[in-house]
Amino acid sequence: MSSNLAAYLAEHRRAVDEALERYLPPKDAPPAAIHEAMRYSVFAGGKRLRPILVIAGAEAVGGKMERVLPTACALELIHTYSLIHDDLPAMDDDDYRRGRLTNHKVFGEAIAILAGDALLTLAFGLLAEHASLDVVREVAAAAGTFGMIGGQVVDIQSEGKSVDAETLEYIHRHKTAALLCASLVSGAMLSGASAPALKAIREAGTHLGLAFQIVDDILDVEGSLEELGKTAGSDRRKKKVTYPGQFGLEASRLKAKSLIEDAKAALQPLGPPAEPIKALAEFIFQRRS
Amino acid sequence: MSSNLAAYLAEHRRAVDEALERYLPPKDAPPAAIHEAMRYSVFAGGKRLRPILVIAGAEAVGGKMERVLPTACALELIHTYSLIHDDLPAMDDDDYRRGRLTNHKVFGEAIAILAGDALLTLAFGLLAEHASLDVVREVAAAAGTFGMIGGQVVDIQSEGKSVDAETLEYIHRHKTAALLCASLVSGAMLSGASAPALKAIREAGTHLGLAFQIVDDILDVEGSLEELGKTAGSDRRKKKVTYPGQFGLEASRLKAKSLIEDAKAALQPLGPPAEPIKALAEFIFQRRS
Repeated sequence: MSSNLAAYLAEHRRAVDEALERYLPPKDAPPAAIHEAMRYSVFAGGKRLRPILVIAGAEAVGGKMERVLPTACALELIHTYSLIHDDLPAMDDDDYRRGRLTNHKVFGEAIAILAGDALLTLAFGLLAEHASLDVVREVAAAAGTFGMIGGQVVDIQSEGKSVDAETLEYIHRHKTAALLCASLVSGAMLSGASAPALKAIREAGTHLGLAFQIVDDILDVEGSLEELGKTAGSDRRKKKVTYPGQFGLEASRLKAKSLIEDAKAALQPLGPPAEPIKALAEFIFQRRS
Repeated sequence: MSSNLAAYLAEHRRAVDEALERYLPPKDAPPAAIHEAMRYSVFAGGKRLRPILVIAGAEAVGGKMERVLPTACALELIHTYSLIHDDLPAMDDDDYRRGRLTNHKVFGEAIAILAGDALLTLAFGLLAEHASLDVVREVAAAAGTFGMIGGQVVDIQSEGKSVDAETLEYIHRHKTAALLCASLVSGAMLSGASAPALKAIREAGTHLGLAFQIVDDILDVEGSLEELGKTAGSDRRKKKVTYPGQFGLEASRLKAKSLIEDAKAALQPLGPPAEPIKALAEFIFQRRS
């Protein structure tokens, strides 16, 4: 990772963390149990990739970070809610995430379910307060049954089965790529992007989102407990369908690399302001966790 | 129930059901499992009280039903999501609701969790498409940790404990009244209500919402399996804190009646257009299920 990119990520992560601190209810606000549980998972050391994509999407069309920070936070809250619900015993039944106990292991299942619900609700509250109706619409579509939730459903239904390449791509595009793409698009939308710019950013987001999930699958195969903070190899243990499982590691790496190049090519018309998105695309490919 | 009110309820319920049919994805839209699960609980024979309150709130300030139907549906979707998650084994662990198996008993826990998530997400998508940012804000606030979810949390934490009257009122105001009140307010808001009209409607909604929950508690004590479609007496079995449990049946009836009168009084300045809300308030008091 170049030192420029490292500095960019660190600076934006700090801004996002400060904003999340402001927008989440204090942990002693009654009823305290739910606010503590929400904060536990939001401040569990995430990369803040979705919020940073919101900001990069804004900057790519001349927007300002300050204007889109609440939207950036909303996308992180939605991501966090999906992780809390995913980890539940009825879903993936994970005890650890990022090296820490999962929400339901600390607060119990009832509060974990409600904390997820609350983060999703708060996300839309933030968007209503600080964004626009088209951003609410974009995010609701990406998070719903034709987006993230749809991907989850097919993922669950495919466990332990052999699925075709089309189903595998459906899962990845919906489960992960939809929300990553909506992050970029929301930032650009809220910054007055022109229709062609929005189209370019949406295309880049689609490629980059799918690349992210393929790299995730690769890391799950290669990683170790220390690096990932969750038990590596868990996809195979849970009989999840993955790119490496279907096509092998080498073909998966090539596919991810080619998607990253497609994302960069799509951004070409936007010129230098889109450089940070391109750097993030490289980061997504090269990351080790 | 007067035949006028019965006709009003039946007509509006039909309009709401038709709109829900339109706004929910078809049950064979992929991934079909989630859409089937969402529809199972939405079309489980609910009274449609929240949507009808949205419409009555609109009509009270000269608005039209057609304009607020998507918002009416959104409120019903949020109510339905909360029931699905409430019934989960980790929460109230109910096998039956309205005489039918609960969502997780039919579709499994994973799909039930996701169906709840999906209904909440779809609700905000509908509001983004057809309502306004202030309605999204109103609904998010009423459904969040300072509204419905907050009430749920304190309700769970109070099970089996003796709580003071203040805590009991906190639970009822938040768990149930907040969303009922937001229903009335959203309809009025979207129909261009003046600030004083909105204030009157909010006040009426607060009283009426609390009355609804007290009557619910009374019915739980009095009701039978046939009438309620869930096992009556379940509050006591689960050691839920209730009005009758705290103050006795007679005092609870008096309290509900006085809240209904307060709601009607608050609506006085709105004149004849608010008559349907007043009739709904009477219905809330007199209902037997």
